Amino acid sequence: MIDLDGIEEICNPSPSKIIMLVIDGLGGIPDPKTGYSELEVAKIPNLDRLARESACGRTVPILHGITPGSGPGHLSLFGYDPFKHFIGRGILEALGIEAFVGKSDVAARGNFCTVDADGLLVDRRAGRIPTEQSMGLCEAISSIDIPGVELSVLPVQDHRFVLVMSGDDLSDSLSETDPQILGKAPLEVTALSLDAQKTCNAVNRFIQRSTEVLHGRDQANMVLLRGFSMIPDLPSMATVYKLSPAAIAAYPMYRGLAQIVGMNVIKTGKTIDDEIDTLEKHINSHDFFYLHYKPADSAGEDGNFEAKVAALEEIDARIPRLLQLNPDVLVVAGDHATPSVLASHSWHPVPVLIRSRNTRGEGVNGFTEKTCLAGTLGTFPAKNLMLLVLSHAGKLSKYGP
Amino acid sequence: MIDLDGIEEICNPSPSKIIMLVIDGLGGIPDPKTGYSELEVAKIPNLDRLARESACGRTVPILHGITPGSGPGHLSLFGYDPFKHFIGRGILEALGIEAFVGKSDVAARGNFCTVDADGLLVDRRAGRIPTEQSMGLCEAISSIDIPGVELSVLPVQDHRFVLVMSGDDLSDSLSETDPQILGKAPLEVTALSLDAQKTCNAVNRFIQRSTEVLHGRDQANMVLLRGFSMIPDLPSMATVYKLSPAAIAAYPMYRGLAQIVGMNVIKTGKTIDDEIDTLEKHINSHDFFYLHYKPADSAGEDGNFEAKVAALEEIDARIPRLLQLNPDVLVVAGDHATPSVLASHSWHPVPVLIRSRNTRGEGVNGFTEKTCLAGTLGTFPAKNLMLLVLSHAGKLSKYGP
Repeated sequence: MIDLDGIEEICNPSPSKIIMLVIDGLGGIPDPKTGYSELEVAKIPNLDRLARESACGRTVPILHGITPGSGPGHLSLFGYDPFKHFIGRGILEALGIEAFVGKSDVAARGNFCTVDADGLLVDRRAGRIPTEQSMGLCEAISSIDIPGVELSVLPVQDHRFVLVMSGDDLSDSLSETDPQILGKAPLEVTALSLDAQKTCNAVNRFIQRSTEVLHGRDQANMVLLRGFSMIPDLPSMATVYKLSPAAIAAYPMYRGLAQIVGMNVIKTGKTIDDEIDTLEKHINSHDFFYLHYKPADSAGEDGNFEAKVAALEEIDARIPRLLQLNPDVLVVAGDHATPSVLASHSWHPVPVLIRSRNTRGEGVNGFTEKTCLAGTLGTFPAKNLMLLVLSHAGKLSKYGP
Repeated sequence: MIDLDGIEEICNPSPSKIIMLVIDGLGGIPDPKTGYSELEVAKIPNLDRLARESACGRTVPILHGITPGSGPGHLSLFGYDPFKHFIGRGILEALGIEAFVGKSDVAARGNFCTVDADGLLVDRRAGRIPTEQSMGLCEAISSIDIPGVELSVLPVQDHRFVLVMSGDDLSDSLSETDPQILGKAPLEVTALSLDAQKTCNAVNRFIQRSTEVLHGRDQANMVLLRGFSMIPDLPSMATVYKLSPAAIAAYPMYRGLAQIVGMNVIKTGKTIDDEIDTLEKHINSHDFFYLHYKPADSAGEDGNFEAKVAALEEIDARIPRLLQLNPDVLVVAGDHATPSVLASHSWHPVPVLIRSRNTRGEGVNGFTEKTCLAGTLGTFPAKNLMLLVLSHAGKLSKYGP
């Protein structure tokens, strides 16, 4: 497999513009009652027409049979090998609330839990206490003083929070504390590498002090921590692809992901219409735009077939606005499938289309899992999508003499 | 590429049951006289119906264009990279006769040959002397005494035998002795690594002593040895996949292969009906069953199109018995194609189907090479099949946050 270093040599800047619309959780599987998937049921005349004018196919996000999380699913779409590059759970959670995490900081995903008088877990989620209550508790344990480490505890939602630690020589090679089962005491953190001992001691000290601060409460009287991680040092899309890439995403986590791969994150609003307004306003300042659309995934995760159909129809109705911007290459892709019948991400290949002046249609009649199976792009690793996109945009020269 | 180590982290035990039926030599190519393959000619209503209810596709056993032996063909199906993990010819031959080979033993495939008065090869196969005659000769050279090495010579068939050597510090880094051409003397064994000198000397001493023991005979007056190998140290399927895997196979070699990857080999009889009887009896003791069906491959190897058709029809008639066991996932796969018109294994992709509660059919109308080409699984590396199977069985959690 060619690596990003090798790609850099054949990438060339050009004035052509690329819009990559990522429909989160795009793919589905047939509802057993009807035999049709969400894409097959949805009325998506614009996407169907695009498919008829485009090169179509299916992306395999990670590997056949592997279900991706949002991190690896997006890294693949941006051309990064999801096995070589990894974004930890703590970092992803921090990105989700736009918490500042410095280059040498360590972030962890945390949550309040409830232990009994013997310190044994009776509720791993502390009754999912409301966010308002969490906020006060986060503030209380945020003020804990650990020598050599600055820490902040930031509420996320309900019982969940993010712990960010700053200091010299911190490491994220730490074990997690959630024993995943009730009736046991939360685990001590252990250092998984020699240079993690300092951070390990600091975290254990923080947990001990938190327990003291939260002592006496009926619930939410302890914390669990997992997914210790640092911001990975990824090669920038700007450098590798010789692009000026921008991200427009209503959800913070996707803005954070985009920032990690070197995109310029443009401020936008909360809806897809806000996003497209932003795109229209900035279309002349960049040559690559990543546009993220979340509702299809949310509906799929909820197991709500009709809501996913509606979400697909909503984004379909916005396609004409994207076309009016006259991009040289328009890509419609998904980071993974989220079939409503599974109510979760899944391992299934995801429909994809690339429309450029080099595509005039290839007999694919509509944008569904089955029609794209017959597309000329075939079924291919998502991490190779960017190469196809750059080629269609005339930004990739030939490899080898 | 994710390795088995990485997979282990996302595998979860669950009560769901998997049956993987491996039809040896499943795939074929069209008979030039009729334009139809064995699968297309065979009356296989049960497999056809399964295909209509399943996710279908084609596995590439090793790599496009590479014809696999039985060892790599099976290792791939079990999820092992066939280039990283290898089972040598000596070991495979030993497995085929259920010879005991210890962890530090070295096995070689041997055969009697005929040399002239000058020691030059006149028949590399010693006229394919009958097994009964071989048995006596094996016994004779089995009693050769080599200091520091215990050896046994076990007859296989006709002129073929297996040499198994036990002792301290043995190595299989040895060259072979068959010059592959008549009129030359058999080669001396050379050590291919420094630590193989002891074994090398022992083998050359054994060949010399054998030649003395067999001296004076018109034919079968010397031995040829090749495929020196030891049992590879493979990660166990039980550990990696968190499965309790069992193998049911009428042929010894496949039982041996299964044992090497950590399956529990269940005693069974000589026919597919015996195998299914065994499966029925043990269905509650394991969550993964590998069921091996040999006759399709044997008929293909014989170049007997009609016999292969008959073998496919025989296994088809047993599908209802498998379905009655109500497995959560039923997989029908092949380790490689064995087209009758080639009378050998081949490099062609092999039809595969996965049936689970998550599959309701996808428009594939029948189980053939051509219909499976249009299946939603696409054409994918056989070593990824287990990932798909585990996902369909709900035993694989998502990769990355």
